[in-house]
Amino acid sequence: MPFSEIDYDVDDRVATITLNRPDRLNAFTFAMRGELIEAFDLADADDEVRAVVVTGAGRAFCAGADLGGGGGTFAHREPAELVDGVPRDGGGTVALRIARSLKPVIGAINGPAVGVGVTMTLPMDVRLASEEARFGFVFARRGIVTEAASSWFLPRIVGIAQAMEWAATGRVFPAAEALDGRLVSRVYPAGELLPAAYALAREIADNTSAVSVAAVRRLMWSGLSAASPWEAHAADSRLMAELGGAPDTVEGVTAFLEKRKADFPMKVSKDLPPGMPFWPENPYGG
Amino acid sequence: MPFSEIDYDVDDRVATITLNRPDRLNAFTFAMRGELIEAFDLADADDEVRAVVVTGAGRAFCAGADLGGGGGTFAHREPAELVDGVPRDGGGTVALRIARSLKPVIGAINGPAVGVGVTMTLPMDVRLASEEARFGFVFARRGIVTEAASSWFLPRIVGIAQAMEWAATGRVFPAAEALDGRLVSRVYPAGELLPAAYALAREIADNTSAVSVAAVRRLMWSGLSAASPWEAHAADSRLMAELGGAPDTVEGVTAFLEKRKADFPMKVSKDLPPGMPFWPENPYGG
Amino acid sequence: MPFSEIDYDVDDRVATITLNRPDRLNAFTFAMRGELIEAFDLADADDEVRAVVVTGAGRAFCAGADLGGGGGTFAHREPAELVDGVPRDGGGTVALRIARSLKPVIGAINGPAVGVGVTMTLPMDVRLASEEARFGFVFARRGIVTEAASSWFLPRIVGIAQAMEWAATGRVFPAAEALDGRLVSRVYPAGELLPAAYALAREIADNTSAVSVAAVRRLMWSGLSAASPWEAHAADSRLMAELGGAPDTVEGVTAFLEKRKADFPMKVSKDLPPGMPFWPENPYGG
Repeated sequence: MPFSEIDYDVDDRVATITLNRPDRLNAFTFAMRGELIEAFDLADADDEVRAVVVTGAGRAFCAGADLGGGGGTFAHREPAELVDGVPRDGGGTVALRIARSLKPVIGAINGPAVGVGVTMTLPMDVRLASEEARFGFVFARRGIVTEAASSWFLPRIVGIAQAMEWAATGRVFPAAEALDGRLVSRVYPAGELLPAAYALAREIADNTSAVSVAAVRRLMWSGLSAASPWEAHAADSRLMAELGGAPDTVEGVTAFLEKRKADFPMKVSKDLPPGMPFWPENPYGG
Repeated sequence: MPFSEIDYDVDDRVATITLNRPDRLNAFTFAMRGELIEAFDLADADDEVRAVVVTGAGRAFCAGADLGGGGGTFAHREPAELVDGVPRDGGGTVALRIARSLKPVIGAINGPAVGVGVTMTLPMDVRLASEEARFGFVFARRGIVTEAASSWFLPRIVGIAQAMEWAATGRVFPAAEALDGRLVSRVYPAGELLPAAYALAREIADNTSAVSVAAVRRLMWSGLSAASPWEAHAADSRLMAELGGAPDTVEGVTAFLEKRKADFPMKVSKDLPPGMPFWPENPYGG
Repeated sequence: MPFSEIDYDVDDRVATITLNRPDRLNAFTFAMRGELIEAFDLADADDEVRAVVVTGAGRAFCAGADLGGGGGTFAHREPAELVDGVPRDGGGTVALRIARSLKPVIGAINGPAVGVGVTMTLPMDVRLASEEARFGFVFARRGIVTEAASSWFLPRIVGIAQAMEWAATGRVFPAAEALDGRLVSRVYPAGELLPAAYALAREIADNTSAVSVAAVRRLMWSGLSAASPWEAHAADSRLMAELGGAPDTVEGVTAFLEKRKADFPMKVSKDLPPGMPFWPENPYGG
């Protein structure tokens, strides 16, 4: 079943999700929302996928919500956004799906990333940007608020002072300001962005256990939510006990001692340890 | 009712609170504590105020608690600090009042900011400093502790390593170290500090919905307190539903599409959405 | 009772803990685990100790778990790691012991710090590094996970994006990358590392109240765990009330007013205030 507003490809163990409405600067729609969630479901289910790169077709990454509905755009509520009577905002359903991805996610921000176009990148693990990228948490300029759980993600990523300066002004700012404020990890000339994103994805795919990475990703993000280091220690102790004698660990340690590359046998699709930290699919019920 | 230890002025939609005991380096007193809280109440209640700038008169920002009481200064407890039997420390009552401000708060730190003089700035949204500024979390040099809820704010703003280095040494340090450690966002030559603070305030006032900014500020600070991104998503989903069809959003989107500046009709004094995230006035009761 | 895998010395009010298995690059063992915990117990109980410096003998800081057990290294569970039926991982028991130290802890990372060799440093207050240092959160390359509660500590120290990049790749990286990513506070030529660590320790010892520093350390780390600034304010208000009239505060304020160095009379061994913030020794029971 092909997608209509995104592209999804897997090559050399890396999935690429491309926001693909270049004539609309890849503006976010309800249909794109559903396709993004489905694409992350595909990536999680496919053992061939070791990392996910998200980028945009054409000159933009994502210009934000499609404002084709005019002044009433944000008044319109899609029925599918209602879950257990709570009107879940669409951007957040994508952000929370990315947050619980079993594969690491690299944002390759090739151009303007504004509104939900930038907040959807916050639960990605690493954001890389092109020199052509621009960013804007423009919500207060439209009368709405920082969405997609960005009030949780953004101050933890860039600090509350930087988060508030960007959110209170609604300013659109260049890649250099994003780098200085630690919203993105590195900035590249336009032609070097995707190669850098794939090099990072391959560094993961070539060297690590897929099961370890899935467990580490869940541990780290839930650790950022954990109330105390004791919770984190309980979770990592359980995983260390469960994985300590597992085939990937035997192979990983043996390969290291033999100074050769490891060939990890375990698969995310069937070998996740029972102690995988909890990260609820739908926190509002179910 | 004029203030005696601070000045409060509103000009061109920006309130300025000036700590005003220059002969005592604006040292903090119990009276100043009450006036600061009252000034933030005024700013919140006045729709003409879109942002608040806090600075100091003369060569200091605030030299810390007034030590006119000598060695017994910190032994003295003001009765008004007792709330529900808990002896609330004075600095913290100011800090927590600033934390729940409905208007964004910009610290313009013009000179020494020591003890409560710096901890009171932590719940401000952005701290800008003059090259003349100096900072010190000097509590351990006096026998007391980091107060004003700074053990919550400081490690979240500058990281626990930087927080502990400053707090354990009690060192007084220059603006350059504050900038490198991300305690302040930018440092300016003395004469350029206030213009920069007002330019930032005006960037907010000229471009954004006051209701959006109030909601975003509450979302972001409570998001930094939220246990999980699900909580943040629930809060922002509710606000998006409540504001999505509201007059400010219709105007904000329409103005954007018409490439003109928005003229937002809603007012903080009467149009805050019912879903404004909770931020308790007095967590000890009431 | 001398130690066998570490050294413990006290000189000029600073304790030095040296990981001391240089022929094995100070690889971590179950015995070293117990000795480290005991050394921190000694430092806490000794009023002569005002700060703790942790470093490694020879050219490494700590190469990680000793892999002398081969592929089965991590399958082996030491009985003593079982607490209340929960198999607590060994690295975490050290990390959580360091987290509740009453004395500030300075990591002087002189060489490779890999696996538990780096995660054990995360609950230290400040990490300083030699230009010879290298770091690696290599767990996913061995089939295991980020341990020692590092999923709680690391994203709070370096941010989730940097934490995930290091943890998902398992990359070994140089001191410069650690500095840029804020894992370490400063990098020194090899010969200047220990002098810098001792200068920082002495800055604390020479200027501050030991009781204040113990209380501030507990406040700040538990503040990083606290659910809200109100909790932090309750804790610091109580400490301000308890210490405000105590001998160290009277001396600290008087000395400051007399422009002389303070001579603080109170001792950590017997003068800690009753309001010392709670930091459980064994969160799994007891």
